[in-house]
Amino acid sequence: MPWPANVSLGAGRVAIATDFSISLSGAGAKDPRVLHAVDHVWPRLARQTGQFIRPNLATANETATLSIVIEQRDHKPPQRLGDNERYSLEVRDGRIHISADYPLGALRGIETFLQGVEQNAGSAASGALQPGFSIAAMQIQDEPRFPWRGLSLDVSRHFIPVEEVERTIDGLAAVKLNVLHWHLSDDQGFRVESKRYPRLQQYGSNGEYYTQAQIREVVEYARERGVRVVPEFDMPGHATSWLPGYPMLGARAGSFEIGPGYGVLSDLMDPTKESTYRFLNNFVGEIVTLFPDEYFHIGGDEVNPKQWDENPRIQTFMRKHHLADARALQVYFNQRLLKIVTRHGKHMEGWDEVLQPDLPKSVIIQSWRGQESLWQAAREGYQGILSAGYYLDLMQSASHHYAVDPLVLPEDRRLALEKEGKPVPEPPTAEEQKNILGGEAAMWEEIASAENLDAKLWPRLAAIAERLWSPQSVTDVNSMYTRLQSTSYWLEWLGLTQRSNLELMRQRLAGSDAHQALDRFVSILEPVKGYSRHAGKNATNTPLNRLVDAIPPESDAAREFRNAVDEYLALPAEQRNSEKLRVHLADWAEAARNVRPVLENNSLLAENLPVADSVVAQCQAATEALLALDPASQTANARDAAWKERATATAKEGATRKGDILIPIAPAIAKLVDAVNVKPAQ
Amino acid sequence: MPWPANVSLGAGRVAIATDFSISLSGAGAKDPRVLHAVDHVWPRLARQTGQFIRPNLATANETATLSIVIEQRDHKPPQRLGDNERYSLEVRDGRIHISADYPLGALRGIETFLQGVEQNAGSAASGALQPGFSIAAMQIQDEPRFPWRGLSLDVSRHFIPVEEVERTIDGLAAVKLNVLHWHLSDDQGFRVESKRYPRLQQYGSNGEYYTQAQIREVVEYARERGVRVVPEFDMPGHATSWLPGYPMLGARAGSFEIGPGYGVLSDLMDPTKESTYRFLNNFVGEIVTLFPDEYFHIGGDEVNPKQWDENPRIQTFMRKHHLADARALQVYFNQRLLKIVTRHGKHMEGWDEVLQPDLPKSVIIQSWRGQESLWQAAREGYQGILSAGYYLDLMQSASHHYAVDPLVLPEDRRLALEKEGKPVPEPPTAEEQKNILGGEAAMWEEIASAENLDAKLWPRLAAIAERLWSPQSVTDVNSMYTRLQSTSYWLEWLGLTQRSNLELMRQRLAGSDAHQALDRFVSILEPVKGYSRHAGKNATNTPLNRLVDAIPPESDAAREFRNAVDEYLALPAEQRNSEKLRVHLADWAEAARNVRPVLENNSLLAENLPVADSVVAQCQAATEALLALDPASQTANARDAAWKERATATAKEGATRKGDILIPIAPAIAKLVDAVNVKPAQ
Repeated sequence: MPWPANVSLGAGRVAIATDFSISLSGAGAKDPRVLHAVDHVWPRLARQTGQFIRPNLATANETATLSIVIEQRDHKPPQRLGDNERYSLEVRDGRIHISADYPLGALRGIETFLQGVEQNAGSAASGALQPGFSIAAMQIQDEPRFPWRGLSLDVSRHFIPVEEVERTIDGLAAVKLNVLHWHLSDDQGFRVESKRYPRLQQYGSNGEYYTQAQIREVVEYARERGVRVVPEFDMPGHATSWLPGYPMLGARAGSFEIGPGYGVLSDLMDPTKESTYRFLNNFVGEIVTLFPDEYFHIGGDEVNPKQWDENPRIQTFMRKHHLADARALQVYFNQRLLKIVTRHGKHMEGWDEVLQPDLPKSVIIQSWRGQESLWQAAREGYQGILSAGYYLDLMQSASHHYAVDPLVLPEDRRLALEKEGKPVPEPPTAEEQKNILGGEAAMWEEIASAENLDAKLWPRLAAIAERLWSPQSVTDVNSMYTRLQSTSYWLEWLGLTQRSNLELMRQRLAGSDAHQALDRFVSILEPVKGYSRHAGKNATNTPLNRLVDAIPPESDAAREFRNAVDEYLALPAEQRNSEKLRVHLADWAEAARNVRPVLENNSLLAENLPVADSVVAQCQAATEALLALDPASQTANARDAAWKERATATAKEGATRKGDILIPIAPAIAKLVDAVNVKPAQ
Repeated sequence: MPWPANVSLGAGRVAIATDFSISLSGAGAKDPRVLHAVDHVWPRLARQTGQFIRPNLATANETATLSIVIEQRDHKPPQRLGDNERYSLEVRDGRIHISADYPLGALRGIETFLQGVEQNAGSAASGALQPGFSIAAMQIQDEPRFPWRGLSLDVSRHFIPVEEVERTIDGLAAVKLNVLHWHLSDDQGFRVESKRYPRLQQYGSNGEYYTQAQIREVVEYARERGVRVVPEFDMPGHATSWLPGYPMLGARAGSFEIGPGYGVLSDLMDPTKESTYRFLNNFVGEIVTLFPDEYFHIGGDEVNPKQWDENPRIQTFMRKHHLADARALQVYFNQRLLKIVTRHGKHMEGWDEVLQPDLPKSVIIQSWRGQESLWQAAREGYQGILSAGYYLDLMQSASHHYAVDPLVLPEDRRLALEKEGKPVPEPPTAEEQKNILGGEAAMWEEIASAENLDAKLWPRLAAIAERLWSPQSVTDVNSMYTRLQSTSYWLEWLGLTQRSNLELMRQRLAGSDAHQALDRFVSILEPVKGYSRHAGKNATNTPLNRLVDAIPPESDAAREFRNAVDEYLALPAEQRNSEKLRVHLADWAEAARNVRPVLENNSLLAENLPVADSVVAQCQAATEALLALDPASQTANARDAAWKERATATAKEGATRKGDILIPIAPAIAKLVDAVNVKPAQ
């Protein structure tokens, strides 16, 4: 995962044992990134196989277990948008062979190889089962569908230390994503050391920021793994954290401070002062020395115009410059900023809002609004990437994100337009498609922190990675989920903690005796979706240590149950047998009953008692429904209208949020209850 | 854990929330180790509580949540044997107070404080349950029973990288151990960079060794945490790894190489050549600059005299110097080595074998032989530490190690002596006891590696730590196990991976779909004990990726079952009710049946099919026995002699090893079967 562009399986396998060796050849073989990747193959294989695999470079391709041939020297650094990532992987006749045009392709091929290594399986009875690990014979030709495949990572709302950022980069590279878009400033924190303007980090970060040395380390870490780093400094809104240190940048008088609150805050930069641009020119000039990438992201989203509208001096400026409204003033600001960014040798990137008639075509638009906005930009000749539909902080399912394609209008949007009688936009032409560079997942950190970051990102991010790398035709959701699970475990060998850290968090909640009861209970729970959790009293210092913080975004068990219920109901009535479904329901009800005393005596878990009670009630309603639906037990379990009313109410109640928790088996239970025919009144 | 010397509980609790602050005062408050420890309190509390606790130093003791007062400046560095570790911890009236004579005591007190922070518990119904974390009101005065409390860590058989060594030091400090005895060379690898004799690491380490910079880093890391680092270079045996690079040190002609095999190998240093001592003098002179500790461990154990006996030149030397045998030659070697070590300003330490009449009293004896050997040394005026009984690689239970006391002869040894009619040695007198400095756990790495090191050390090492720190009277095994479990989870917040890494290893074995079935199955399994696993074809390159490598040394579930069976059988017959026991048995049998297909189709797990089959048979025999023992079901379940014969055979077979796996419920099942009265033949 991501699934390759072309793959065909062969017969047999190649063993991966302690004598594993690698040869490197071709003009690009000495590229430092390739040498680095090879250095990491030994320990990664050792971890994946539990064998003592030590560095073993073969002198000839013919004697190496894995031979890597790289035709061309590296593209000139830094890594650029569109750099060739093509590779082929061939496994046959006892040898593995990776070839690539350029070093970057070799990096991608090595990840595919490592992902293919698995334990020998088969039947012990047949006697042919050699203990150990191997890779199946196969032929792969692979290259990405889109050249820009990234993750936008917010480190402002909650700071993400270097260690976690680097671990995230490991994950990005493993699933062939190639951009870390580093959202380095926002209202809640300014996260980069400026030597020219040190009060930015001194007054804007609570002490949590990256030193310039750390920035350089991360950029180099990413480069070694074939990942570009695009910095974002959000302006002129989402910019409160600039102002405590440099209040003269602000659009109102007085002093500023960073508050703990979230949302579209009111503080803005003042785009009417020349001193603002002198400051930004100096700042950008300093900061671009840290980031070799060609692109510089200026944010530009969600400007609340109140402070501009209310400031007489700014209003005077606008009249003088014939700027009709705040929107026009932001265009003016963007134009000035564009000059600064360009002067320092960078292309500008911004969110949807920056798109304006006079904008040069070198600007890249990142769309949080959706395909239509992106397509419109492409039509006008702007390059763009899609982020709408890829917001991982919304706690949607992997399949939800997997269904989002930069070149396909979402089904619900199409239906909505048709319903409103509005025209459904044409998909981009082949020419326009060239302007659609790919997409970026986005992880905003209001209700996430370094502690549970991995679980918020992984494994769902791998599904998005597949959407952006693999051919458009790769859309089988069941196959995706199967591979997603293996990929998630594979990523844990890289040090990602999406499973282990949530376990620890639940242990912290429940105590060492009781966490197993809790672990069992949470298997069918999910956090609420979208921004509904924000509608509370969350702030940067709100502890993220509750049950909702310690469960994955998506319940595999609940999804599988919903699918199984659909299959059950689709069967002819006489063929139905619900035994397996009822075993699950009994398990969950038992888990909910067992966990009750744990919840009851626990200061942080007590709020979840209604969840446990609802699970018990839902499982009972579903079990009763199934007994009434199964032909074998139907007669003895006929239900009357009063039962159906009660059960329907139970399912309906089950579908409501309990605090910040959802019970995502509820929709399936409603279907079961609904399917029961009521026996006539006597 | 370890349990304090004096503790009394008060009423109420002190909350630990985001406003948590610390004040530091007293002459020792500026000690770098204290500042370092305080720097780590914030992130550790943040992890332990899931709250955003950030550095917050209070200016006055009265306003700080935690005030730390350190009376004296530091002892002169480096940390020395016997440095004062005393502290007191007082929690009351909303404040926490640690006071210590010296910085070292403050470090110990901080660990006690951190371990005491727990989630508020109580009854949600009572309404008084504030969500959050706190520490109970208490008063503690604490100091260690023994001044030398260590872990001997073998990094030769399998190399342990710096990261894992430092993680281990985190754990040592957390449970108040104060010595890392670093076993840096042995037959299988020489693990330190020598600049003077670089062929030591070049030819002796497979490339896996610590650079001098890394050694310095680890020593500093340990010092910051109040842990001394004592290096060991084992001589003149266990020294094969010196010889490939410097064959002139060897007691035979020809070349040498490091083999993968284990045991007491035949290659020895040549103690008759002056060049050997010149080499060692230079080597020790270089290496002591890396290790500031006063002690230098020269090993000295397990010399196989064959090469000395067979070398005519060595024999001639021995005759000339009136050295009667190999033993005398080793004494000669030790005396020469002692001079070298002394010349370079260090005290010598060695294993039992180095103890000889002429040895100066400054030498410390580490006893792998047992209390008698240690007491004898103490009687003769030598200081010593106990390691016998604390070998963690033997896979014994925590309670086994917990029962071993440097000042108490083991019960089985006493019985054996009495049986043989030999005198039971007197325990050391109060005066002699002063020579008994403490003990060291030992972790040899033949069948462990960096991957599963944590699970081999933790949590059992915490039980040994308690034995060496806490008063001799602290011996309640049930209390120890309860606290051990909490401590183990607590240690995971420090980054230790005893649980999470074994889970990953089992996932690697079983595959992502099947590991839960495997996890459930292994809960009642243990690795074989002692050195019986060595009696195979293990070598340094043998993969350690089998089931036996992926389970903890001790099964909690099996221990609890054995205890429950003892309690059941101790009850008057008419009061017995085995329902709970039978639920466990049914669970385990089901787990064993469910895992069978996983084992069967898996190249590395197939060898464990007999384990699964035996578990099923044992659970059935036990269930049948219990039904025949419970008064309620007795009559309907009378068993005949043929049953008892079969069931006895099942339990007996269950107690045998299956490959390298034990099923430690078997002894309890034998007891149950044995207790069944056979109904008379009809």
